[in-house]
Amino acid sequence: MIGSTAAEHGPHVVGATVTPIAVADPPLLNSVGVHQPYALRAVVQVHTDAGITGIAEAYGDDPTLDRLRRVIPGLTGLDVFDIHGLTRRVSAALAGVEADTPTELIGVASVAKAVAATVAAFEVALFDIQGKATGLRVCDLLGGAVRPAVPFSAYLFYKWAGHPGGDADQFGAALDPAGIVAQARHLVETYGFRSLKLKGGVFPPDDEIAAIEALRAEFPEHPLRIDPNANWTVPTSLAVAERLDGVLEYLEDPTEGIAGMASVAAQTTIPLATNMCVTTFADVPRAVATDAVRIILSDHHFWGGFRASLDLAAVCETFGLGLSMHSNTHLGISLAAMTHLAAATPLLTYACDTHSPWQVEDVIEPGSVVIRAGEVTVPEGPGLGVTLDEDALGRLHEQYLRCGIRRRDDVTPMRAVAPDWTGARPRF
Amino acid sequence: MIGSTAAEHGPHVVGATVTPIAVADPPLLNSVGVHQPYALRAVVQVHTDAGITGIAEAYGDDPTLDRLRRVIPGLTGLDVFDIHGLTRRVSAALAGVEADTPTELIGVASVAKAVAATVAAFEVALFDIQGKATGLRVCDLLGGAVRPAVPFSAYLFYKWAGHPGGDADQFGAALDPAGIVAQARHLVETYGFRSLKLKGGVFPPDDEIAAIEALRAEFPEHPLRIDPNANWTVPTSLAVAERLDGVLEYLEDPTEGIAGMASVAAQTTIPLATNMCVTTFADVPRAVATDAVRIILSDHHFWGGFRASLDLAAVCETFGLGLSMHSNTHLGISLAAMTHLAAATPLLTYACDTHSPWQVEDVIEPGSVVIRAGEVTVPEGPGLGVTLDEDALGRLHEQYLRCGIRRRDDVTPMRAVAPDWTGARPRF
Repeated sequence: MIGSTAAEHGPHVVGATVTPIAVADPPLLNSVGVHQPYALRAVVQVHTDAGITGIAEAYGDDPTLDRLRRVIPGLTGLDVFDIHGLTRRVSAALAGVEADTPTELIGVASVAKAVAATVAAFEVALFDIQGKATGLRVCDLLGGAVRPAVPFSAYLFYKWAGHPGGDADQFGAALDPAGIVAQARHLVETYGFRSLKLKGGVFPPDDEIAAIEALRAEFPEHPLRIDPNANWTVPTSLAVAERLDGVLEYLEDPTEGIAGMASVAAQTTIPLATNMCVTTFADVPRAVATDAVRIILSDHHFWGGFRASLDLAAVCETFGLGLSMHSNTHLGISLAAMTHLAAATPLLTYACDTHSPWQVEDVIEPGSVVIRAGEVTVPEGPGLGVTLDEDALGRLHEQYLRCGIRRRDDVTPMRAVAPDWTGARPRF
Repeated sequence: MIGSTAAEHGPHVVGATVTPIAVADPPLLNSVGVHQPYALRAVVQVHTDAGITGIAEAYGDDPTLDRLRRVIPGLTGLDVFDIHGLTRRVSAALAGVEADTPTELIGVASVAKAVAATVAAFEVALFDIQGKATGLRVCDLLGGAVRPAVPFSAYLFYKWAGHPGGDADQFGAALDPAGIVAQARHLVETYGFRSLKLKGGVFPPDDEIAAIEALRAEFPEHPLRIDPNANWTVPTSLAVAERLDGVLEYLEDPTEGIAGMASVAAQTTIPLATNMCVTTFADVPRAVATDAVRIILSDHHFWGGFRASLDLAAVCETFGLGLSMHSNTHLGISLAAMTHLAAATPLLTYACDTHSPWQVEDVIEPGSVVIRAGEVTVPEGPGLGVTLDEDALGRLHEQYLRCGIRRRDDVTPMRAVAPDWTGARPRF
């Protein structure tokens, strides 16, 4: 009987809870619109017969919550070490589920990706339990830390001073090169970041090129990246690439799709990176065959968890691709997960993305994952090495109940300001 | 400091021993010659500060022993969970080592492959320790068993009745279709094998086709494979493929090299498999680009251990390749390792190869890895779930000292019978 042999070796799942939360989010601008006042996340808690609970963070939109909850009944009895069994159980529970994606900024929706994201959420919690059961850190369970701390990049955003109709937030506006440089200066001073990434695709390319050039002038040693989230045509991408050749560490998703990226890649020496056109293993062969990208931005949340991310690293290494790490808005549980994973991934030589500095609320007890000198030191564990703050979880769940937001939508809030806004790409 | 963070979490290595052994081996024929009267293996024992010892089996030729021993001093202090640290330490210790391969039947020698084989030997022992330290089976540490028992195939060999100048062995001669069928019948009756693989490349292809057809007549339901170890030209391979289309499950290494295999693959519908032209990750891109093979035969001994084998599985799955498992002569420690790995590899849907039935001597206490109904039930663990028999180890080491064989050489013993024999391929 498949899977039956793993039934007696680790702690076993007796239940799980999924708690949606909402965290205040600044009006960060991107190619499809603007962040809503609250970003949604879900906190997954998996309970075992050993009395150990594991935690994880997932997307918090309604379709994701539905999928997470649909899976829970079938997890009872699962050995926490049986990751293959988790995949089987999730696949079975989600058979026939609708394809859906928590944001169009991580590529096309598919059932396979929905399964992968659901596996990921529970897999992180299972690894947290594995670590707590064995006294090991998650990174130890993933083959060992190749670096004691993981570098992250400053994630720069064009932003308004506040949400429409609301007060200004603590971060201030950033709507031109001077604003972006000021933001970068603040982030570098506060967190010590040694790489800078600009979320582009917001203003006409000339303006964003000017911002990158201003960053280069202000931070001559910092590797720079720009990510217009596929808001440029191929010719626009090539024009930008020509202007920024020698300035960028890599150019992230300038244009839509593998074919478009391959066209750009063939005509520039700047390495192209993606978290939009290669977002599942099924995308890899065509990307490799067409030399569409040189760097894949992994993300355990949608690639399928830790093990799948290590699989992706193996694929990238085999085919001479580089590996970086993507981020959506996340809290401390995911920052810990990202740090353990990145620490255990030799190929991951680029500074990882993180939205962390934009979140002023969290669900974990403070102090275990902190960005200092541009790095997060791998938490000591066991497991993820972070502790859920039950009070904060309750508060942020209340906030979720109150805020009324039930799925990420960057387009509608932009319409409040620009009534004709569609978020359609490419805009430039 | 790289690797320093993993220094406090698991048991740590305090030393290791490498004991070469020789086991009686029948005169099995292949494309380069005939097995010597003794096959060499090395038993690796890794000791830790937790008092736990892990074991593994490796090749036993002089260059392998030298590499294994050269690595040992640098392993002191290694956390047994730090597999990346193992790789770093092995790579450092073997910098500048000579490329060398324990047998030309597993592809071209390279330094990378020497490193991979050395990592593999110690990695298996470290996983054995990990399991013993946590109470888990190796397969649990690899993501969980997707099958409670692993199917193996009967490995049929042309063979003489005994070594030249020696007595007949218990297995008898098999030098024609009737002999191969009788051998298959014996193996199927004794072990319950449900797949049959013939080591070919020994007699003219017509004779081996006749053997396959005789097997098909006698075992109409058993998947059949033939492996001439690259002893055929491309035209010969195509001629055989045409004759055996619809009869073979797959055709293994009919001809030499990725280019040759690609030529054959382009002109036959029989899936081609290899453990000769794709034996490192560096070989994969060209094999994929040329559609040279449809199935890779993994082998943790030379691919770099358990984790590397899972990486290979990820690569194969991503690119739509199948996965089977190769075997050289091995004993029970490796059979346990192969079984745990195969159990934890969902993609591995073919029956694995094993030489086990040809070995009448072993270094483990009997009973934990037994082929029944064509399968080996995953040992219960912890770790590999096998126990070293120290007396047997001593006896087989004495046999090693006495036998005088220091590296595998299939060519020389064949010369005793055929003075002009060179083992040069392709012969047909």
